[in-house]
Amino acid sequence: MKPSLSVVTLGVNDFARSLDFYKRGLKWATKASKKDSIAFFKLNGVILALYDKKSLAKDAQVEAKGNGFPGITLAHNVKSEKQVDEILKQVTKLGAKLVKKPQKASWGGYSGYFADLDGYLWEVVYNPFWKLDQKGSVILP
Amino acid sequence: MKPSLSVVTLGVNDFARSLDFYKRGLKWATKASKKDSIAFFKLNGVILALYDKKSLAKDAQVEAKGNGFPGITLAHNVKSEKQVDEILKQVTKLGAKLVKKPQKASWGGYSGYFADLDGYLWEVVYNPFWKLDQKGSVILP
Repeated sequence: MKPSLSVVTLGVNDFARSLDFYKRGLKWATKASKKDSIAFFKLNGVILALYDKKSLAKDAQVEAKGNGFPGITLAHNVKSEKQVDEILKQVTKLGAKLVKKPQKASWGGYSGYFADLDGYLWEVVYNPFWKLDQKGSVILP
Repeated sequence: MKPSLSVVTLGVNDFARSLDFYKRGLKWATKASKKDSIAFFKLNGVILALYDKKSLAKDAQVEAKGNGFPGITLAHNVKSEKQVDEILKQVTKLGAKLVKKPQKASWGGYSGYFADLDGYLWEVVYNPFWKLDQKGSVILP
């Protein structure tokens, strides 16, 4: 198994509502419309998918029930503290919940967290020790 | 917020054990050792991180408790049905759990699922309608 992650799929409770957040709210490009059952967003080297949560569980042949912290977080790295602040303001206006106010981190960075409409946690973070390439992918030191 | 996903962090229950699965088992490159508290794996354009689950929840300022289906799945796309079979055999030998046997999918592909040591679901999938670039990233049609 090569070191590759192709798609991250978020199981969503209301497809149209979640699609709206990412497509119309964040203006992330996708061919999907509300009539579809799945949406793919081409991000920097990885695809983000939205799919009905029950259908996703069924596809994996697991029980759909799940509560509390999913155990996975997604990070969005940016190039300055100011950008962290701006993005967290933007997403909360779009209906996301501010989970952790942007603040200095003990390791020297600056970050905050928001929960999207289905509760998935995104960390918006500035890491002064990491560079980003043109596509926004992290270049590990 | 640009369409970018930088890091996917899996909250793990036993860091050394989970590191062992990805580093020694799958032979994915990382500078991290068992003495560390976090591991970064450079995948194709995105970074996979392993971090203590309670610490991850604390960092996001959420309750660490969570049960059942996390709602997120990760996909590993390959170039043939044979590769799906081979990888699922490999990971189960390394201690992962086969959740869904590899099989033809209604949409024309072929896939199976495994749960890693912490229960995170990876779909290993061959999609004849998607091409992969050299790094293993999907080229959306």
